[in-house]
Amino acid sequence: MGLPRWKGGAPFFHPGSPMPECLVFRVPAQHPADVSEVMGLVASGAVDVTEIVAIFGKTEGNGCVNDFTRQLAVMALETALATALGCTAAEVGARIALVMSGGTEGGLSPHFLVLARRDSPAVPEGKALAIGTAFTQEFRAEEIGRMAQVEATAAAVGRAMAEAGLTDPADVHLVQVKCPLLTSARIAEAAARGHGVATHDTYASMGLSRGASALGIALALGEVDREHLTDSAIGTRRDLFSGRASCSAGIELMRNEIIVLGNSQGWTGPLAIAHRVMDDGIDLPAIRGVLTDLGFLEAGQLPPHESERVIALLAKAEPSHDGLIRGRRHIMNDDSDINATRHARALVGGVAAAAIGRTDLFVSGGAEHQGPDGGGPVAVIARVRD
Amino acid sequence: MGLPRWKGGAPFFHPGSPMPECLVFRVPAQHPADVSEVMGLVASGAVDVTEIVAIFGKTEGNGCVNDFTRQLAVMALETALATALGCTAAEVGARIALVMSGGTEGGLSPHFLVLARRDSPAVPEGKALAIGTAFTQEFRAEEIGRMAQVEATAAAVGRAMAEAGLTDPADVHLVQVKCPLLTSARIAEAAARGHGVATHDTYASMGLSRGASALGIALALGEVDREHLTDSAIGTRRDLFSGRASCSAGIELMRNEIIVLGNSQGWTGPLAIAHRVMDDGIDLPAIRGVLTDLGFLEAGQLPPHESERVIALLAKAEPSHDGLIRGRRHIMNDDSDINATRHARALVGGVAAAAIGRTDLFVSGGAEHQGPDGGGPVAVIARVRD
Amino acid sequence: MGLPRWKGGAPFFHPGSPMPECLVFRVPAQHPADVSEVMGLVASGAVDVTEIVAIFGKTEGNGCVNDFTRQLAVMALETALATALGCTAAEVGARIALVMSGGTEGGLSPHFLVLARRDSPAVPEGKALAIGTAFTQEFRAEEIGRMAQVEATAAAVGRAMAEAGLTDPADVHLVQVKCPLLTSARIAEAAARGHGVATHDTYASMGLSRGASALGIALALGEVDREHLTDSAIGTRRDLFSGRASCSAGIELMRNEIIVLGNSQGWTGPLAIAHRVMDDGIDLPAIRGVLTDLGFLEAGQLPPHESERVIALLAKAEPSHDGLIRGRRHIMNDDSDINATRHARALVGGVAAAAIGRTDLFVSGGAEHQGPDGGGPVAVIARVRD
Amino acid sequence: MGLPRWKGGAPFFHPGSPMPECLVFRVPAQHPADVSEVMGLVASGAVDVTEIVAIFGKTEGNGCVNDFTRQLAVMALETALATALGCTAAEVGARIALVMSGGTEGGLSPHFLVLARRDSPAVPEGKALAIGTAFTQEFRAEEIGRMAQVEATAAAVGRAMAEAGLTDPADVHLVQVKCPLLTSARIAEAAARGHGVATHDTYASMGLSRGASALGIALALGEVDREHLTDSAIGTRRDLFSGRASCSAGIELMRNEIIVLGNSQGWTGPLAIAHRVMDDGIDLPAIRGVLTDLGFLEAGQLPPHESERVIALLAKAEPSHDGLIRGRRHIMNDDSDINATRHARALVGGVAAAAIGRTDLFVSGGAEHQGPDGGGPVAVIARVRD
Repeated sequence: MGLPRWKGGAPFFHPGSPMPECLVFRVPAQHPADVSEVMGLVASGAVDVTEIVAIFGKTEGNGCVNDFTRQLAVMALETALATALGCTAAEVGARIALVMSGGTEGGLSPHFLVLARRDSPAVPEGKALAIGTAFTQEFRAEEIGRMAQVEATAAAVGRAMAEAGLTDPADVHLVQVKCPLLTSARIAEAAARGHGVATHDTYASMGLSRGASALGIALALGEVDREHLTDSAIGTRRDLFSGRASCSAGIELMRNEIIVLGNSQGWTGPLAIAHRVMDDGIDLPAIRGVLTDLGFLEAGQLPPHESERVIALLAKAEPSHDGLIRGRRHIMNDDSDINATRHARALVGGVAAAAIGRTDLFVSGGAEHQGPDGGGPVAVIARVRD
Repeated sequence: MGLPRWKGGAPFFHPGSPMPECLVFRVPAQHPADVSEVMGLVASGAVDVTEIVAIFGKTEGNGCVNDFTRQLAVMALETALATALGCTAAEVGARIALVMSGGTEGGLSPHFLVLARRDSPAVPEGKALAIGTAFTQEFRAEEIGRMAQVEATAAAVGRAMAEAGLTDPADVHLVQVKCPLLTSARIAEAAARGHGVATHDTYASMGLSRGASALGIALALGEVDREHLTDSAIGTRRDLFSGRASCSAGIELMRNEIIVLGNSQGWTGPLAIAHRVMDDGIDLPAIRGVLTDLGFLEAGQLPPHESERVIALLAKAEPSHDGLIRGRRHIMNDDSDINATRHARALVGGVAAAAIGRTDLFVSGGAEHQGPDGGGPVAVIARVRD
Repeated sequence: MGLPRWKGGAPFFHPGSPMPECLVFRVPAQHPADVSEVMGLVASGAVDVTEIVAIFGKTEGNGCVNDFTRQLAVMALETALATALGCTAAEVGARIALVMSGGTEGGLSPHFLVLARRDSPAVPEGKALAIGTAFTQEFRAEEIGRMAQVEATAAAVGRAMAEAGLTDPADVHLVQVKCPLLTSARIAEAAARGHGVATHDTYASMGLSRGASALGIALALGEVDREHLTDSAIGTRRDLFSGRASCSAGIELMRNEIIVLGNSQGWTGPLAIAHRVMDDGIDLPAIRGVLTDLGFLEAGQLPPHESERVIALLAKAEPSHDGLIRGRRHIMNDDSDINATRHARALVGGVAAAAIGRTDLFVSGGAEHQGPDGGGPVAVIARVRD
Repeated sequence: MGLPRWKGGAPFFHPGSPMPECLVFRVPAQHPADVSEVMGLVASGAVDVTEIVAIFGKTEGNGCVNDFTRQLAVMALETALATALGCTAAEVGARIALVMSGGTEGGLSPHFLVLARRDSPAVPEGKALAIGTAFTQEFRAEEIGRMAQVEATAAAVGRAMAEAGLTDPADVHLVQVKCPLLTSARIAEAAARGHGVATHDTYASMGLSRGASALGIALALGEVDREHLTDSAIGTRRDLFSGRASCSAGIELMRNEIIVLGNSQGWTGPLAIAHRVMDDGIDLPAIRGVLTDLGFLEAGQLPPHESERVIALLAKAEPSHDGLIRGRRHIMNDDSDINATRHARALVGGVAAAAIGRTDLFVSGGAEHQGPDGGGPVAVIARVRD
C-alpha cells in the first residue's frame, strides 16, 4: 500500500487473534440537534451502538456561559441513542461520554466525533490507537478546583491508562476530561456543612475545575512535580501545565469523567494518535510536527487524499494573558463585543485548517493549565495503515 | 548577500542615476489614535513627511457600519501630519491617501503601513516595487455602483499605471481603491435632479461601490470582458472579478482614489510585490505561491528572519455565499451575534499568520468582485534584495 | 369583590350551566430547557395536560437566525408532555401549539405562558377570555410570502374566530400565528416544479411569511382593504398592518397555525384581554390604555397586587426604518454588534416593565405589518374578576 | 406664567442685581465626532465659548473596554473648541470637563449636554440650578481604588459645593466625577517605588476607582458613616452607596475631577435639579418622584410640551448581582454575547423614556457604590420657571 510507514513499535501479538480496536468516525451536523449522521453510522452498520464509548461534539454556540447548543446536542443525542440502545435518555449518559464543545468561529465546521471500541482481528502492525475511560468519585463542592480534584483526577487517569493497556505515559497523547462546576446551590450546600469553596464566582469555578483537572493529568503523566502543586497554584501558575490535557466543565455532573487516548501494542486497527504543544496561537510548526509524527511527509497543506486520512484534530485555544503573540498586540482580551475565547478559537482554527486543508476540526477554548499561556495541546488521530 | 534571487528582469538603467523608489514601513498601533510610531518614522528621518503617498491602517473596530475606529485613526493621522506638513488637517487628505480598514479579529494585530516615494540611486537589480496614484472625477450619486463608476475606475487605473511606469498589466499586483457610498442626502439630491440610484439601502451601496470599483480594475487589467459588464452584473455576477483589487468604501469622498502597486524596471529599491488569488478562506497554497514568487523557498511557516523580510501581506476575506468551505458547512452567514465578515477576517488572518509567522497582516473584508466567492486576492510586499 | 368592574356586556347564559373557560398560566424558566414549572402545573392539578391548547415561550437566545434556545425549549416541552400525554414527542406538536420567541434583552425574564381550555360553570359576569385555533392547508414554497398565504390565513382566522365563538372582529384582541419559511431545499423543490418563490434569501423569507400572515389577519379583521393587498405590497407597504397580529416563523412547519384570543359572552372565567397599538417603541400611553380598558385605574406603575392581576403582556417590537423615535436618532439599525431587533425588544421591554412593574413580559421581534413602522400591537390578559 | 410652581425657598437677593446662572443645553449628535450642534450653540450666541464649564456626551459605542467613540468625541470637541477658544487642544481639557459615556442601547439617542455658567440678572424666584467644580491632587497609582481616593474626593466635593454656594448637602442632587484608572505602566511605576496597588486587573481598576469616588461623595454628603469605610469595603460593601454619585473612569487623567450640581438661593435662572434613587432597573416611581419634585404633576408619560421642559435626565444603570429584578430572573450576567452593562442601559433607558417621552437621556453604566445593587441614582434638570 502507498501510505507512508508510521513510526511504531513491532507487533507482539499473533496475527488474527482478537484484539481491541478503537474506531473514530467524524460526521457533520447541520445544526446542534442534527444527529442524523451519527445515527446513520449505526443504521449503516459502520458501528454497533453498543460499541460507542464517547461522542465529542463541536457545536455552533458561543462556547461561553449562555451556550445552549451543547445542551441541545446532548438532548438530541440522548433521545436518539436511547431508542437505539433500548434504554432511557438518562441511562445513555452513564454509558457513553458525551463531550460537547461550543464555538465554531472563523471557518470551523460543526461536527461530531464518534469513538467506539470493538474486538477485531489482530494485525502485525505495531501500536494502534487505544482508548480507556475512568471516573473519579463524585466531588463535594469544596473539593472542586482544589488539590482533592487534582489528585482524584491523577488517580483516575492511571486507571483509564490501565484499561487502555497504556503503561508508558509517553504513549498517552490526549486526555479528555469532563468536569463539574460550582453553582449557587452547591456553594450553599457546602456552606451549610461548614465548608468554604474555591470561588463564589460560578463562572470562575469552570476555569478552576478545568485547571485542577489538567494539573491532575499533568501529575499522572509526570509533566509536573507533585511538590509544585497547591490549591493556590491552580489557576495562577501558568508555567505548570499538561501538554496532553483537554478539559471542559459541565453543570450536569459532579465527578470527573476521563477518556485517555494513546497508542498501544495491545490494540489493533489502522488508526494512531500523536500530539505536540502549540507555543502560541500561530504555531503551525507544532501541527506540522504532529503530522510528521504520523507519517505525513508533505511540507505544505495536506492535499485532499491525505487530508482525508486525518480523522480528527483536537486543539485547545486561548488568548495569551499578556495581550501579545510573538511580541505583536492582539485585541482579544480588550474586545467587549466578542469574547476572547471566540477570537482564540477562530485563530487556531485558521492555523489548523491551513495545515489540514479542512475545517471540521475540534478546536476548543478554556485552556487553563492545558499547554502554555496563549498556546495549547494539539492532537491528531489519523489513519496510518490501510 | 544571502537572500534568494528574486525572479525579475534585467536592469536597463545606468547604475547610480536617480530613480524613483517606493518605500513601505509597517508600524504597530497601541490603539486606533496611536500614530506615535508613524510620526516616529518622520522624526527619525526614516521617511520625509513629504515623501508619504499613502497610509493604510488596520484598526480594531468591527469593520462594519458603526466602526468609528477608522474615523478616529484618520483624525489622529490628519492632526499629526498637518503639523508635520504645515498644512491644515483637511489638506492632509488631499495629499496623502488614508485608507483605514477596520477589524482585527482572531489574532490580527493593529498596525499602519506607510507608503512613500523618493528618488534614489538606481541599482542594477531588475524590477522593483512601483507605486502610482490617480483619481476619477467626482461621481454623481446615480453613477455609484453602476457602469459609470466601472469605466471611470478603469480609466483611472490606466493613469495610475502610467504614473508608476507600468505598461504590462501582468506587472500590476495590487490596486487599492477608496470609493464613495450613498447617503440619504445624496440619494435625495439625485432624486431632486430626476435620477434614481442603484440602491436605496445605504449599507448595500457600499458593496455596490466596492464591486463596481473592482470590476473597473478587472476591466483595466484585462481580467474580464467588457461585454459581460452591465449595471445588473454588479453585485450579482460572482464569476466576474479581479484577482488584484482591494476596495473599501468611505463616506468622506465622492470620487474613487486609486493606488496601483506593481513591479517596474523603472523603479529601484529592495522591495517587490507579488500576488495570487485565494480560492477559498483556507487557501494556504495560494499564499505559499506568492511567497515562492518572491523567493521564499521554505515550505513551512517562515522563520523569524524570513518573516521580517515580508513587509506587508494584504488579503481580502469574505464568507462564501453557499455556506461551505470545501464542502463543509461554516456558520458565518447564520451568526446573528458576530457579523460574517468578522468571522472571515479571523479565518484568513489565521491562515496567513500560519504562513508568515506574524500577525500584523492587512486582512480586510468586503470582497465583492475581488476574487472568487469565498476567496480573495492576496498580495505580499517583501524585501527581495539587500 | 374589590376588583374594578371591567367593561363587558351582560351575560346571556344561565348561571351554573357549563361553559368553556380559557385559562392562562405564567411560569418562570431557569434555562430554555427548564420545563419543570410547566409540568408542575400538571402535577399540581392546576391544569390537566389534555386541556392545554398552546404554550408560548420567551427564551433567552438572540431571537435571530442562530437562536437554538427555541428548538431546545420545544424539545424539552415535547419530551415532557409526551410522557404526560402518553404519546410520542412528534404527536405533541400536533395537539399543542408550541410558539417560542427568542430574546430577553434588557431586563426581560424568560418564562412560559400555558393556555388551556376547560368546561366550567358559567357565571353571570359578561364577556370572558376566549380562545380558538385553526390551521391553513400546507403551503407550497411558491405560496409563502405571497397573496396565497394572505388569503389562506384570513380564512383560517375566520374559522378560529368561529371556534372561539367570536363573531365581531372588535372582540378579537390578539391573533398569534406560527408560519413557515423558505429553505434552500424548498426553493429547489418549487423550481423543479417550474415555480419561482418570493425570495431566494431564506432569512428574508421569514419576514415575508410573517408579513403575509399579518396581512391575512388584517384582512380577516377588516383592518385593511382587500384592494390594497398584492404580492408586491407584502414587506413594502408599511402603512398596511394589523393592530392585533403577532407572527413568528419557524422551519418545522409548512402551514400557518392560528390562535385567536378575544372576549366572548359564550365563555366564562375571571380573565379578559384587551389591546392597543403602540405608535413607537416608547408609547407608554398605549400600554396604559390597555390597562385602563381592563379596569386598572392607577396612573403610574402598577403596585404589586395589581401587577399580579396581569397574567400576560404580549407586545411586538421593531426598530423604525427611518432611524428615529419621535425625531431623535436611535442607533439600532447601524449597530453591527447587536442586532436591531435585540435593541428593540430591550427598549419595549423597559417601557412595558415601567407600566406593569414586572419583567416576565412577552415582547417579541419581527413585526412586519404588525403595527406601524417602529411600533406594534400590545395585548394584555388580566384577571378582571375574582 | 403657566408653569407649575416649583418647590423652592424664597428669594433673598435684590431683583436685578447680577447673579450666577447655570445654563444647560442638550444637542443631538449624528455620530461620535459630530460636534456641529455644540459649536452651533457658540455660533448662534446661545452660549459664549468661555462660559462653558463642562460637556457631557452620550456616545454610541459599547461603553466597555474597547469603546473608542468616547475618545473620538473628545478629540472632535477639543479640536473644535480649541479653535473657538484660541488655545491648543490640550488646553481645552484643562478648561472644560469633557465627560463621555458610551452606550446608547435600546432606544437611547446620542447627544451632548453643554453646561455653562454666566452672570445674569437675579430674579425673585427662589433656588436655581448651581454648579461647582473642583479637582483632587494627582493620585499615585497605589492610592487609586483605596481610602486615599475616597478622602481626597470627599474633600474636593466640599470645595466644589463651596464654589457653587451649596452649604446644605440636601441641596446637592448630582455629583459627577471623572476619575483615573490603573494601567500596566502605572502599576509598574508604583512597584518600582515599592508600592502595591489595589488590583493588577486594569479593567477592575476602573470599577474600584469609580467605587472609591462614589464613596467619597457619599462621605461628603453624609450618606455613609466614616467608620464603615475601609479599603476592603470598596467594591464589596454594596450596602454603602451615594444616591447622588455618577462616576466614570478614564485613562487620560490621574486626578478626580468633580462637578457638583444642586439648587441654591445664590443662583438665578429658570433651571432646577432634583434626584431620587432607583431601587432597581424598573423603578419608574423613583423617576416620577423626581418629576413631581420639579413640579411635573401629570401621572403618566410627559406630554411633548412638558417633556421639552426636561433639559436632562441622568441615570446610572447596572445589573443586579443576584440575577433578579423583583424576584424574576434576568439574563444580563450570563450573556456572553452582550455585556451586562449594555442590557442594563437599555432597560433603564426604556423605563426613563416611558416617563419622559423622549430618548435623548443620559443613562450610563458602571454604578459601583452609586445607588443600591441593581439600582442607581436618577437626576433631572428641568426648566421650572419661564
